[in-house]
Amino acid sequence: MKITDVKVIVASPGRNYATLKITTDDGLVGWGDATLNGRELAVAAYLRDHVGPLLIGKDAHRIGDIWQYLYQGGYWRRGPVTMTAIAAVDVALWDIKGKAAGLPVYQLLGGAARDGVTVYGHANGADVPELLADVQRFVDAGYRAVRVQTAVPGLERTYGMGGNSTDVTYEPADGALPSEHVWETGPYLDHLPKVVAAVRAEFGYGVHLLHDVHHRLSPIEAGRLGRSLEPYRMFWIEDATPAEDQEAFRLIRQHTTTPLAVGEVFNSIWDCQHLITNRLIDYIRTSVSHTGGITHLRRVFDLAHLYGVRSGSHGAGDLSPISFAAALHLDLAIPNFGMQEYMGHLPPWDEVFSVGYEFADGLFHPGDAAGLGVDFDEAAAERFPYEPRYLPVNRLRDGSMHDW
Amino acid sequence: MKITDVKVIVASPGRNYATLKITTDDGLVGWGDATLNGRELAVAAYLRDHVGPLLIGKDAHRIGDIWQYLYQGGYWRRGPVTMTAIAAVDVALWDIKGKAAGLPVYQLLGGAARDGVTVYGHANGADVPELLADVQRFVDAGYRAVRVQTAVPGLERTYGMGGNSTDVTYEPADGALPSEHVWETGPYLDHLPKVVAAVRAEFGYGVHLLHDVHHRLSPIEAGRLGRSLEPYRMFWIEDATPAEDQEAFRLIRQHTTTPLAVGEVFNSIWDCQHLITNRLIDYIRTSVSHTGGITHLRRVFDLAHLYGVRSGSHGAGDLSPISFAAALHLDLAIPNFGMQEYMGHLPPWDEVFSVGYEFADGLFHPGDAAGLGVDFDEAAAERFPYEPRYLPVNRLRDGSMHDW
Amino acid sequence: MKITDVKVIVASPGRNYATLKITTDDGLVGWGDATLNGRELAVAAYLRDHVGPLLIGKDAHRIGDIWQYLYQGGYWRRGPVTMTAIAAVDVALWDIKGKAAGLPVYQLLGGAARDGVTVYGHANGADVPELLADVQRFVDAGYRAVRVQTAVPGLERTYGMGGNSTDVTYEPADGALPSEHVWETGPYLDHLPKVVAAVRAEFGYGVHLLHDVHHRLSPIEAGRLGRSLEPYRMFWIEDATPAEDQEAFRLIRQHTTTPLAVGEVFNSIWDCQHLITNRLIDYIRTSVSHTGGITHLRRVFDLAHLYGVRSGSHGAGDLSPISFAAALHLDLAIPNFGMQEYMGHLPPWDEVFSVGYEFADGLFHPGDAAGLGVDFDEAAAERFPYEPRYLPVNRLRDGSMHDW
Amino acid sequence: MKITDVKVIVASPGRNYATLKITTDDGLVGWGDATLNGRELAVAAYLRDHVGPLLIGKDAHRIGDIWQYLYQGGYWRRGPVTMTAIAAVDVALWDIKGKAAGLPVYQLLGGAARDGVTVYGHANGADVPELLADVQRFVDAGYRAVRVQTAVPGLERTYGMGGNSTDVTYEPADGALPSEHVWETGPYLDHLPKVVAAVRAEFGYGVHLLHDVHHRLSPIEAGRLGRSLEPYRMFWIEDATPAEDQEAFRLIRQHTTTPLAVGEVFNSIWDCQHLITNRLIDYIRTSVSHTGGITHLRRVFDLAHLYGVRSGSHGAGDLSPISFAAALHLDLAIPNFGMQEYMGHLPPWDEVFSVGYEFADGLFHPGDAAGLGVDFDEAAAERFPYEPRYLPVNRLRDGSMHDW
Repeated sequence: MKITDVKVIVASPGRNYATLKITTDDGLVGWGDATLNGRELAVAAYLRDHVGPLLIGKDAHRIGDIWQYLYQGGYWRRGPVTMTAIAAVDVALWDIKGKAAGLPVYQLLGGAARDGVTVYGHANGADVPELLADVQRFVDAGYRAVRVQTAVPGLERTYGMGGNSTDVTYEPADGALPSEHVWETGPYLDHLPKVVAAVRAEFGYGVHLLHDVHHRLSPIEAGRLGRSLEPYRMFWIEDATPAEDQEAFRLIRQHTTTPLAVGEVFNSIWDCQHLITNRLIDYIRTSVSHTGGITHLRRVFDLAHLYGVRSGSHGAGDLSPISFAAALHLDLAIPNFGMQEYMGHLPPWDEVFSVGYEFADGLFHPGDAAGLGVDFDEAAAERFPYEPRYLPVNRLRDGSMHDW
Repeated sequence: MKITDVKVIVASPGRNYATLKITTDDGLVGWGDATLNGRELAVAAYLRDHVGPLLIGKDAHRIGDIWQYLYQGGYWRRGPVTMTAIAAVDVALWDIKGKAAGLPVYQLLGGAARDGVTVYGHANGADVPELLADVQRFVDAGYRAVRVQTAVPGLERTYGMGGNSTDVTYEPADGALPSEHVWETGPYLDHLPKVVAAVRAEFGYGVHLLHDVHHRLSPIEAGRLGRSLEPYRMFWIEDATPAEDQEAFRLIRQHTTTPLAVGEVFNSIWDCQHLITNRLIDYIRTSVSHTGGITHLRRVFDLAHLYGVRSGSHGAGDLSPISFAAALHLDLAIPNFGMQEYMGHLPPWDEVFSVGYEFADGLFHPGDAAGLGVDFDEAAAERFPYEPRYLPVNRLRDGSMHDW
Repeated sequence: MKITDVKVIVASPGRNYATLKITTDDGLVGWGDATLNGRELAVAAYLRDHVGPLLIGKDAHRIGDIWQYLYQGGYWRRGPVTMTAIAAVDVALWDIKGKAAGLPVYQLLGGAARDGVTVYGHANGADVPELLADVQRFVDAGYRAVRVQTAVPGLERTYGMGGNSTDVTYEPADGALPSEHVWETGPYLDHLPKVVAAVRAEFGYGVHLLHDVHHRLSPIEAGRLGRSLEPYRMFWIEDATPAEDQEAFRLIRQHTTTPLAVGEVFNSIWDCQHLITNRLIDYIRTSVSHTGGITHLRRVFDLAHLYGVRSGSHGAGDLSPISFAAALHLDLAIPNFGMQEYMGHLPPWDEVFSVGYEFADGLFHPGDAAGLGVDFDEAAAERFPYEPRYLPVNRLRDGSMHDW
Repeated sequence: MKITDVKVIVASPGRNYATLKITTDDGLVGWGDATLNGRELAVAAYLRDHVGPLLIGKDAHRIGDIWQYLYQGGYWRRGPVTMTAIAAVDVALWDIKGKAAGLPVYQLLGGAARDGVTVYGHANGADVPELLADVQRFVDAGYRAVRVQTAVPGLERTYGMGGNSTDVTYEPADGALPSEHVWETGPYLDHLPKVVAAVRAEFGYGVHLLHDVHHRLSPIEAGRLGRSLEPYRMFWIEDATPAEDQEAFRLIRQHTTTPLAVGEVFNSIWDCQHLITNRLIDYIRTSVSHTGGITHLRRVFDLAHLYGVRSGSHGAGDLSPISFAAALHLDLAIPNFGMQEYMGHLPPWDEVFSVGYEFADGLFHPGDAAGLGVDFDEAAAERFPYEPRYLPVNRLRDGSMHDW
């Protein structure tokens, strides 16, 4: 089962996605997601110019060997571009292996360990009433877990904090150049506990509540926030502090029993080894497509399992449906699944991607088609050429760059 | 001093180099090196497609702010592609600032802390006599420090271990596809101490000897090697074990007083923070161009200084003369300089690059032209188009992928 | 650019300042602040008798080498007198380098990383109403952050705690011999939370509040104080416990999420390495003039950056305008600026110093003159000869010496 | 017993000494040593201008209170200048108290815990034969312990390494400006074990051998040196690495059982707390005059006792006979005495100082006069005015400043 073709397609059906197509000599096709939000063309070049030629002629069954070949043999290891490229290859090869076996990928990973995959959705609001309405929408749809965010009074615009999720234009990567937002921590720390209190007052404790801090706090501020949210029993607070600094979580941990999640910006097990082995977090939120694919992420989750840390995979719109499907297969099979994010995709995504995964009663199931169960329409993709789109950047009132 | 143009040139005058050119509205031009060995086009795309458009109109004087804008604001931090791209911008901006100030860059970094920069060269040999002849060549040229490598008996070909450095084709990235070498640790562990003993027997202890292990050992093997080399007072052994695993160095350290160096594959301070703050190494070998530029590498060196670790910057042929010049400026200014690698560049590099740095009596000096003192001939570069070239990969006798 | 003259001037235009003047053979003059509150003449002797003669003939561009020459070469390292003397030389040389480059110093430090430097002022009061009036004065002036202190009921006089800042004689170093104050911790712990509550009740949460404990508490008392202030979201509490004992902050930290600041009595990175690398504080308050100058303080801030600690530079009246300008240049350029103290200077300071820095809308900017942008009128200084002035000392009711 | 006069005399009978004289209203006079090698006039100014006026009228019996008054009340704590000044006051007050009690100081410290104080002398040589002759001289004089140093082949001049101690001009502070020496670590590491081996071959193991590294090594180099000296059972190696970095000693410790000593540059218990409580050294070499006097040094030794670390007080010629006497009193009384350095003083020191301490059979005794047993002739001192004298500085071959 030799690899005969490797192709990268960058298209923008709703937002930019880089997609990898691997074809074998017995006609199987595997799909991988190579999207790196705002850096799509760097990964595309990495795959097209440097990885593709090296894969031609290799045995598509040797996923592990190819992984090490690209990782160990590539000299330059780790980092978002490299690991997203390797992940795309890895996922495409698992897709092929599933098709070769006539089995959905989760069966190759050991089979289903649960009936379905619990997801949380993003409820947003310009203010509390708007947020409550948005939470209601998710509850009505059967969600058992909801992420709650609102705008912060006094801050004009903050990524990930305002806007209503029912608004179809809700997409953080909103411009051909990054817009610049202004951030202030004080008002946020004052505001958020009131927001969560309002949600609990309205919906009680039967739904899980989550919140994303977007890396904006110092550890001691995060400790304060976590403590102030304790009465509301959060499922987690996510990305409390800048994520390179694993040891910083110890200080947060010291001050609060609010569960902690982090990981969407991680690219390898080395980015979270300290966090996990020191039990500084409760959920590891790394994604299939930014952490070296199924092969590598499974190892991250296995390490987490050993230390009582559960999975909480990233699943925002910057991952294509291919990644979401891959995440569901892995979620279904691992012993220590915790939670899966689901933000959905903006239309006309479904003109390009067709998916087998389905949602019912708060749970997703990846479906039972052979492979990942996702297909990609190359002809349709041509109708949606790449257009530059960037996430905003964050500055403090004095103009300093700030984590976001 | 607004940035008006950002351009990336990939050319192959001897080997592939990616060069960044930044132009300001007052006509100043700054040069940066964006070369990432074997992944050149990914960095080029990163810069051309994602970074360039964001820089237009920014104040070239605000180096620190632009650094944070690209790092903090880019969402996806760290990793070889990202940090090489940021480094290229950073170095080009320091070049511009030097020109704006009418001073060589080292003056902006606090001025010269030494007369010149001690370098070591690469002496190689298919066998010991060949190596001795090659060492003699460096000693005759005034070098005070030489890296010694030979082929290992029984291993057909090993990257970084054989071939004579007087051979102009000595260049590890030797093929349009990676060649595959076979590695065996036992013969190497037996052989190397004899090699170094022979060099000491011939040249005495008046020249510093270094050796590069190319990440091929386990920690306990590295401990054994270090101890077996103690009688020969090595300046360092480099890259003993796979570099992601910082804590592994503790085991090596426990068994030997042979000084340890590592870092050419590191891309940020986070890759070596544990190594440095736990004093697990003696020399940090990160490079300007793969570790975020002068702005970031200076922070790495400053951290190292606090922990008694000295610099040992990478300076192989995969860094262009722009990077080598930038390294010399930094080397000259920091308090804790240790050693600088100098491998030189293959012809016809000098048809494209013109440099101000000079070698005399074992030391390099970056020169006193304003900025970095390096110029790049765009027209000449066009005569040397990019051609794919890759480093070899390493497999054990049983076919397993191995670190190299 | 050889140093041709080194001169120390001690003058008292409002309070005592020791000023260093370095002149080069091309006529450039650099100014440094050598003031050490209450020990001015020791630093003056250190510079005049021991440092000055060693500098004559040295290249003023070699700031880093001169720093190491005075530090490593001086045998006796660290400590307030030594490091203030080295700082004065370092700042004067950066002033000269800026002038040689035709650029303000912040440009040499990497350029502006923010629009301006947020400062806090000192609001004081004999009682709460007086304090509220004083806070109002700062808010009206555009300050975004205010330090709040009042007298403690039952304590007759306490340095740093009473008196109104509108009183022009507000200057802690109030006598030719140290006055002796009586301290009692209990009333202070009872009183302060009420004071801060009153300020929050009056001004809400839109202004940052800070408080200086003046090293007077035990760690467990500081933990109690920090926790009791949590509802009022302090920006920081400063100098909670005696500062030599870095590990003591761990106990404070364990009990409160109120941010901690310390450092004005520190003289080198070794005084805060443990505090920073163990994340026991949130803001490091070392000053340019007491911590070895720009060269060394930048290293302190860079270390802090790696550990999520922000700058909070000391800026009381015991630093001359030269130090304040130097602090502003550094504040503007570093990535992890947090806050800058600004206490201002007592008249007739401006008969001697002329400054380029300006305040607007809560922010200071150092100005864009080449160098530091501060000038010193030697002739005017002669009108204000040194007069001994000391800070008070602190005793408990039983007569024991107490930290203050 | 009020203090009525405080006077500082700087004189150069052989070398510069700063001497403090405190007089009380009942006519007692106490002498303190305020010498800080190469920074004499800074300490003199500190005492004369800032400390003296504060002491007038204070009760000379309240040594502890005055210590805290100067330390806690002086705001600026620690550091060589401050602590030497406080030490001078402290020692002078102990001298007075002894005279008031009619007892030698050691009796006030708890009485003699041994018969006498073992000292080691400095044997030097330009080469091994010269060194052996010098060792013989000490052995003949009854010394039980000798420090051995020789010049390093290939290094022209190195402070503390060459010259013969019988040469009356042996004095490291050799110039009105610091001379600049060139250092190279390799030859030293190769040479020293041979030197010590030669001494052992000649003199056997009946005399203790010590060696001073003068802070010139990195930790791993020191580990190597310590290991290479193990066959020769050193009493200690001194000042292996730069002394600010306490934690660095852990690495040395890991590699060798050669006992370690450090401390002559320390100024307070905070400089060695980590070293002692982590048992990273075997001997603490702080001195009375640079570590806050008898009051503070006793606390250092008490802490050391708790952790099995012994005293090894500095006693080079940069301490005046007053300090040497004070050290002997303390050495005689503490439980954990280890060793005392004795370098002696250059003539005509005895025209100014008269001392009661005596040497016999390898031991010193401080004598039984009331107080310290040292007198100072002010009239004679006037014949030897201060003349600037500095220790050399150390540079590497490339011109870098190096620790020495």
